Amino acid sequence: MAAGKPTSYSRVTLSRIMTAVDVNLYGTVHGGVLMKFVDDVAGAAAARHSGGTAVTASIDEIVFSEPVRVGDLVHAHAQVNWTGNTSMEVGVKVVAERWDSAEDEPVRVATAYLVFVGVDVGGAPRAVRPVLPETPEDERRFREAEIRRAHRLARRRAIQAHRAG
Amino acid sequence: MAAGKPTSYSRVTLSRIMTAVDVNLYGTVHGGVLMKFVDDVAGAAAARHSGGTAVTASIDEIVFSEPVRVGDLVHAHAQVNWTGNTSMEVGVKVVAERWDSAEDEPVRVATAYLVFVGVDVGGAPRAVRPVLPETPEDERRFREAEIRRAHRLARRRAIQAHRAG
Amino acid sequence: MAAGKPTSYSRVTLSRIMTAVDVNLYGTVHGGVLMKFVDDVAGAAAARHSGGTAVTASIDEIVFSEPVRVGDLVHAHAQVNWTGNTSMEVGVKVVAERWDSAEDEPVRVATAYLVFVGVDVGGAPRAVRPVLPETPEDERRFREAEIRRAHRLARRRAIQAHRAG
Amino acid sequence: MAAGKPTSYSRVTLSRIMTAVDVNLYGTVHGGVLMKFVDDVAGAAAARHSGGTAVTASIDEIVFSEPVRVGDLVHAHAQVNWTGNTSMEVGVKVVAERWDSAEDEPVRVATAYLVFVGVDVGGAPRAVRPVLPETPEDERRFREAEIRRAHRLARRRAIQAHRAG
Amino acid sequence: MAAGKPTSYSRVTLSRIMTAVDVNLYGTVHGGVLMKFVDDVAGAAAARHSGGTAVTASIDEIVFSEPVRVGDLVHAHAQVNWTGNTSMEVGVKVVAERWDSAEDEPVRVATAYLVFVGVDVGGAPRAVRPVLPETPEDERRFREAEIRRAHRLARRRAIQAHRAG
Amino acid sequence: MAAGKPTSYSRVTLSRIMTAVDVNLYGTVHGGVLMKFVDDVAGAAAARHSGGTAVTASIDEIVFSEPVRVGDLVHAHAQVNWTGNTSMEVGVKVVAERWDSAEDEPVRVATAYLVFVGVDVGGAPRAVRPVLPETPEDERRFREAEIRRAHRLARRRAIQAHRAG
Repeated sequence: MAAGKPTSYSRVTLSRIMTAVDVNLYGTVHGGVLMKFVDDVAGAAAARHSGGTAVTASIDEIVFSEPVRVGDLVHAHAQVNWTGNTSMEVGVKVVAERWDSAEDEPVRVATAYLVFVGVDVGGAPRAVRPVLPETPEDERRFREAEIRRAHRLARRRAIQAHRAG
Repeated sequence: MAAGKPTSYSRVTLSRIMTAVDVNLYGTVHGGVLMKFVDDVAGAAAARHSGGTAVTASIDEIVFSEPVRVGDLVHAHAQVNWTGNTSMEVGVKVVAERWDSAEDEPVRVATAYLVFVGVDVGGAPRAVRPVLPETPEDERRFREAEIRRAHRLARRRAIQAHRAG
Repeated sequence: MAAGKPTSYSRVTLSRIMTAVDVNLYGTVHGGVLMKFVDDVAGAAAARHSGGTAVTASIDEIVFSEPVRVGDLVHAHAQVNWTGNTSMEVGVKVVAERWDSAEDEPVRVATAYLVFVGVDVGGAPRAVRPVLPETPEDERRFREAEIRRAHRLARRRAIQAHRAG
Repeated sequence: MAAGKPTSYSRVTLSRIMTAVDVNLYGTVHGGVLMKFVDDVAGAAAARHSGGTAVTASIDEIVFSEPVRVGDLVHAHAQVNWTGNTSMEVGVKVVAERWDSAEDEPVRVATAYLVFVGVDVGGAPRAVRPVLPETPEDERRFREAEIRRAHRLARRRAIQAHRAG
Repeated sequence: MAAGKPTSYSRVTLSRIMTAVDVNLYGTVHGGVLMKFVDDVAGAAAARHSGGTAVTASIDEIVFSEPVRVGDLVHAHAQVNWTGNTSMEVGVKVVAERWDSAEDEPVRVATAYLVFVGVDVGGAPRAVRPVLPETPEDERRFREAEIRRAHRLARRRAIQAHRAG
Repeated sequence: MAAGKPTSYSRVTLSRIMTAVDVNLYGTVHGGVLMKFVDDVAGAAAARHSGGTAVTASIDEIVFSEPVRVGDLVHAHAQVNWTGNTSMEVGVKVVAERWDSAEDEPVRVATAYLVFVGVDVGGAPRAVRPVLPETPEDERRFREAEIRRAHRLARRRAIQAHRAG
């Protein structure tokens, strides 16, 4: 097993301006455009941490808290919060700077947690090195990822129990 | 409150062929491309059920179960599973027909659950008519949406409790 | 020669929602956008029937009967109507569901007939298996393809005679 | 009725280089990409002749005579060949310069005939001024458009007679 | 005249990952793709400084110093270096992080200087507030912009003198 | 060294219609869209002259003299003006035909001078054959390219002297 990497090693930010192609008829950006943006940045963080290819296995949650509009400068910040044997949880925070208020603080517009799996050239899962939380903030995110994972498994069991009747 | 609509009323299917623009260097389709496809079809189902504009509020879960490849014919099936006052859960099933095996059954490649909110022209939430499950399958999905909702709220409480320390 | 396949074997449907990128300044979808959509679905039907690559040789006719608008959910249905030694006629029907009238019947917006040729990896024509009409509807389409083919050849002769004339 | 315009008045050429986005897995350009290119240039010729908006009513024929490849410099030449009261036939010739043979003659890769209809701001048909052939070549194209029109109507009658049984 | 703004006020960074759509047949990113990226970030800096719309008037120089490749994470940093009455010089530095060497320093891949003009809603030039250099680095860039401006005017005079003969 | 080629040998024109995707909120085309168009046509001229791959080394100047609008038919004309051992200056003239004034002369909207370098398959510079001016116009452009080159070098020296202090 390769030596671990600190949480900070995987941090990646992507930044773009939203254009008329990205919006619906009311001028707000489609959720699907933001989802693709979230997946791009999360994939870069997972590739960086794992030193190779990683594919999206699941999305645990994406919450859209404020609308994004044409002209907004949008930043997506990602990092690997937690690692298992072959999987990684990536957290993504998306903020928007409104074009007409550069002096105001950026607004949080979306929060997302995705699970990526490291794969080899044949597409089979491969082991990924452990993430090593350094700061109290890193530690908090690591433990919250465990809570999300526990809830994800509990939810699947509850759904299966309901189907089994 | 407008009269309800049966689950079947909101059913929408989108179908497309995946191209070289959609894939990574290994020939498998980016998760972000599928997320955008899922959001498109879910948005259409939500708009149809609610008879107006609806925006993505959150994604409860997307699971990618099999890779999608260049040339695959991919179908995304969506329907409104559950309704609250202003929100709707939309379920999406994505299947792929491999271009070189038209006789085989389509393969399930992704499953997703999204929450949409009906909005008026000013972007404020508006009431949406209730969905009326008709078949046992509709009933099962309605109850599973309630389970997902309960788990989503429990997860948020657990995370908040952890942060509060 | 491989055994034939019934007409139903090649049936393919693509479905998409028209967006602001697809329309002219008056809000109606460009003919060229629909042509590309027609070619995509017809190519999939030809590939499926012939079990390999097929390229567009000619378009016999496309008629646009109603405008398509932003937000319309558009379905393109294709099937192989007729086969020669290396060529196939593919028929395409395009219908639109207006976003604001989900209860109404979809509207026929375009009808097209294209000729595809099966090609091998070097791009040379290859034999394609015969299509086997099963229903009276399949039979009707097979014979109409022959009528179109006879008229296409007659038209070319008439144009050539005029030029020689 | 506005005074007529000579055939040469409507001539338009569009030129582009084909890229990796435009091709299939074998490196040849999709028929649909060329169709959209043909529609773009034909629409410009129809708008120019009619001094306003014109929409695609039908395609009479597109013949693809040679494959187009990545890197080819492709020119589409269009002109209005014929006019009726509200409709116009536009002829399009597409040629390709192979990137590795700039000294060779461009190769004819497609020939197309489309019918456009002038429309007013509400989308209703409007009268278009007559095209005035000037050269023997213009005259030949005008008469060939009439031959195509006669054959188109004859074909439709033949198909209808077949359906009526 | 509105009060000036410090150089730092206008600083904007855009960041994206280069994909297969952006590259030529040898896997290096087209100059045109980087030019568009440079214009996007420079336009954002000019809009922010001038508090309104600004359009590209000219590019003084873009130098591409290293190739950019598929998978590179590319950052474009822009700021307003100098202001006149209605025009602004924007400097842009573009750096690339190679996907396979996250620990190495980013590589400078392009440097650009563009002139933007503030415009009102009718498209006419409008006065822009002065930029106020704060640090020695800001001062250096301000004076270098003056040198570039003097050379630009000298070059135009030299070309005009040559043409006048 | 291969024999030279006349200036006319490298002449290339690209022509396209500007669409809603290309414009800002005021209906004028982004500078970045025109820059990419300029790079495409210049790259084709450089490849044609040098008989192989050529990459953008720098842009000496682009001046945007008039706005371009949705619906404009825009032509970019390029040719190799000057050659060194491995580099070439390409001149580009961009003109627009306003859609509503086909009888007027096209308007000059941009002028650009770019330097390309011929590269071999490994990306290393390769010698390019000399350009041979034939007409007085070709001669004039050749000498103006030398003036631009001298000014470019002088400007770099002036900037370096300023930095050295």
